[in-house]
Amino acid sequence: MFESAELGHTVDKLRYRREEPRLRADLLDAQFDVGTVGKFPVILLVHGVDAAGRGETVNLLNAWMDPRHIRVRAFPEPTEEERERPFMWRYWQALPPRGKLGMLFGGWYVDPLLERAGRKGKMSDLDRALEEIVRFEGMLANEGALILKFWLHLSKKAQKKRLESLEQDPAEKWRVTRDDWRNHERYDELRKLAMHVLRNTSRAHAPWHVVEATDSRYRNLTVGKLLLDAMRQRVAAEKKGTRRSTSSAPPPSTPAVDGRDVLGALDMSQKLTDAEYDKQIAREQGRLAKLCRRKAFRDRSLIIPFEGNDAAGKGGAIRRVTGALDARQYEVVPIAAPTEEERAQPYLWRFWRRIPKRGRIAVFDRSWYGRVLVERVEGFAAETDWLRAYAEINQFEEQLVRSGAVVVKLWLSISKEEQLKRFEAREKTRFKRFKITDEDWRNRKKWPAYAAAVNDMVDRTSTELAPWTLVEANDKRFARVKVLRTIADQLEEALDRG
Amino acid sequence: MFESAELGHTVDKLRYRREEPRLRADLLDAQFDVGTVGKFPVILLVHGVDAAGRGETVNLLNAWMDPRHIRVRAFPEPTEEERERPFMWRYWQALPPRGKLGMLFGGWYVDPLLERAGRKGKMSDLDRALEEIVRFEGMLANEGALILKFWLHLSKKAQKKRLESLEQDPAEKWRVTRDDWRNHERYDELRKLAMHVLRNTSRAHAPWHVVEATDSRYRNLTVGKLLLDAMRQRVAAEKKGTRRSTSSAPPPSTPAVDGRDVLGALDMSQKLTDAEYDKQIAREQGRLAKLCRRKAFRDRSLIIPFEGNDAAGKGGAIRRVTGALDARQYEVVPIAAPTEEERAQPYLWRFWRRIPKRGRIAVFDRSWYGRVLVERVEGFAAETDWLRAYAEINQFEEQLVRSGAVVVKLWLSISKEEQLKRFEAREKTRFKRFKITDEDWRNRKKWPAYAAAVNDMVDRTSTELAPWTLVEANDKRFARVKVLRTIADQLEEALDRG
Repeated sequence: MFESAELGHTVDKLRYRREEPRLRADLLDAQFDVGTVGKFPVILLVHGVDAAGRGETVNLLNAWMDPRHIRVRAFPEPTEEERERPFMWRYWQALPPRGKLGMLFGGWYVDPLLERAGRKGKMSDLDRALEEIVRFEGMLANEGALILKFWLHLSKKAQKKRLESLEQDPAEKWRVTRDDWRNHERYDELRKLAMHVLRNTSRAHAPWHVVEATDSRYRNLTVGKLLLDAMRQRVAAEKKGTRRSTSSAPPPSTPAVDGRDVLGALDMSQKLTDAEYDKQIAREQGRLAKLCRRKAFRDRSLIIPFEGNDAAGKGGAIRRVTGALDARQYEVVPIAAPTEEERAQPYLWRFWRRIPKRGRIAVFDRSWYGRVLVERVEGFAAETDWLRAYAEINQFEEQLVRSGAVVVKLWLSISKEEQLKRFEAREKTRFKRFKITDEDWRNRKKWPAYAAAVNDMVDRTSTELAPWTLVEANDKRFARVKVLRTIADQLEEALDRG
Repeated sequence: MFESAELGHTVDKLRYRREEPRLRADLLDAQFDVGTVGKFPVILLVHGVDAAGRGETVNLLNAWMDPRHIRVRAFPEPTEEERERPFMWRYWQALPPRGKLGMLFGGWYVDPLLERAGRKGKMSDLDRALEEIVRFEGMLANEGALILKFWLHLSKKAQKKRLESLEQDPAEKWRVTRDDWRNHERYDELRKLAMHVLRNTSRAHAPWHVVEATDSRYRNLTVGKLLLDAMRQRVAAEKKGTRRSTSSAPPPSTPAVDGRDVLGALDMSQKLTDAEYDKQIAREQGRLAKLCRRKAFRDRSLIIPFEGNDAAGKGGAIRRVTGALDARQYEVVPIAAPTEEERAQPYLWRFWRRIPKRGRIAVFDRSWYGRVLVERVEGFAAETDWLRAYAEINQFEEQLVRSGAVVVKLWLSISKEEQLKRFEAREKTRFKRFKITDEDWRNRKKWPAYAAAVNDMVDRTSTELAPWTLVEANDKRFARVKVLRTIADQLEEALDRG
């Protein structure tokens, strides 16, 4: 892995002086093409051993190219805001939008590597984190990102020499810390760890490039050329339209031969009387209110995606939920078409940005499931894209749950006849908010396609960590009580489990 | 001020039961109109004495209306991220976009009131903060926001009774803290302070409504009706197009009778030889690099808006500045047309969101001055809007500087002849990034209008806290050195002053 980066590669001054101006000009041109023709994000992770010149390399690329279209991010100790969310949250925030270049110091490898190197985490934790990273990078690649990962390398001898020479230079002395020397003593161990990480996370769509950094001219030219080639190739592929998705998601399901499915299995006749409703809704609201005020909840969060047929009563149900909560504690996030900024990022980005902190609640009125519902049925997303979404969503929710969130997923289901009744009633109502649009009628015509999508969604994304609950909603009273009870049950169970 | 809110207003159960459903329905309709017809943001500040039911009121409005279009924000102790920026930063982040309703607990009155009530701040500090708030709310109103400020009031006797009854209820007991009783003892003093604040910050476009909160039914109906009336009136005004800007900015300047102006006074013949340039640029870059590494800089930040004629060499100058900096420390923010999310907020919002933390540097490639330059000249902004921008910008920069930022404003100036030469040269170059567009040629035709705008800008926004530096840029070498030297000088002076 590191052998050819310990050979003592060098480039002489003359050659550097000849090649550098041309490389700069080419990089600038390629960057321009990325921003105008390619319109894909470029993600550059710069990692490596201490004193290999990670900072210098990033500074240099920034000076060679147009810094207006580059974002640099380092990842020191996480801040308060960051600690209160899943560990990947801050990396999502750091992703460059399409057409821009993001240079990340270490990137998402920082936390798992530090933990393991600090002997805090187990090897199995590291491997789980690496698997998560591989899937994450796969998602980024599928979303169109060009990913390059540089490992700047020094042999043990070269590292020692570099540290010593830095220490002798009064202007550079401050760069060398105690940690650097301590890490130098553990060189062999850390080298082995790095090898493990690199070997397990190098993929065609997100390769590691190990670059020897003993000679800074060699390092600079090598990094610059690798970046240039990657950008050029990718722009050329975009022009020819030959970029292929690497998705290997299973194909869509075919309906069961006996015609039975999860939606069909619901007993839609369930209902409550007014008296039952009044009693039960008050009880469930009280339960939820108390649960959210428990001390244990301060370390958890509650995330509730609401989905359902048009006119299934999501709005009313949500109001019954929020009615039990303190307004300071929750946010209702309505999901409509993505904004410009959101469209320039991977699909899940806009949900990541609304993830609540600890002690807080987010109610999503429609959610990340849009991709496998409306976008699938209406053809807004390509088949390869919505097919890979199932796995991405499962991974997303796994991260939420592992960081302490309770995820309660609710599908409000009404029958086709009930929907018709409600549409007709709404057309007569005085309330402007209940206006029926042409789109509602159009969606209704695709009832079977939506039903198939819902069945697939439940089959593929109802997990032990974040199960789906289907709510029979022909009777609004029954539905609201079931919604409240489901949330309270799931939250109570999570808090009791601790 | 509070007299009529200490009369013991009540509403009986019967009346409440009759009026409440209608009020709810009307509020929902009005909210719908705000989101679809009005498309203005509604900002509701809810403040008042302890135990007056601020939380209950916000919860109730949230339950009455559609919570999907409401954002609630409370302002507890500022977080790390917030403390590292001007105190108004977190309030800017909390502003609702157009069409939505933001309910803010106390809003921007929280910090100044707490400081003064805690006897930490002087009365003159409070008054300065109030003045700032008045100007801020004036800006919001000019940007189209509907602002309502509620002060929920209890007489001293009523407050005591309420605190006692809360304490006796096991379910509500937790609400009463020691601070509440301590504040109750200081009731008269705090009442006087509140009176001072309310009297000095009530304006037609952002009025305070003092609402007696002894009887919760009275409080609820009153708040609901005030909100309903305000939304309805404003929607009606929008429909008729009768809303007027309250701006009272001075009119645009007329050219001096002798034709002399600040741009004309520049000596555009200044230049450097290659040898002078190499020596001086290295020296200034070194100075800047060292200054940004000083310990004192950790409590400061550096904000550099670059403006200038097309082809004046902003990009090259910026690269010379960033070349002296560590990539982890700075961000270059290119300002192009605002995004969707940014257009749904007041003009300065998109710059507020990019304000750097302490110890960091933001270089703006074009800036908030766009409003008084391109938007003025091209007619993208109405005259009343760009005229009020001068004062808003001065206030913005004042807040930045007071929070520890050093603001270095640079205008790169070239002559009309020099621009023509550069345009023609660019048309022949191989570098794609230097492509000349039709727009560049169009802008060139408006040279005199831009010159007038620049002169006005310098006259009206060059302040002792954040002065403009005009950079003679016909010679690129001279310009780059002057840019670096100006930044280093201004930063050095600020750090030395401490």
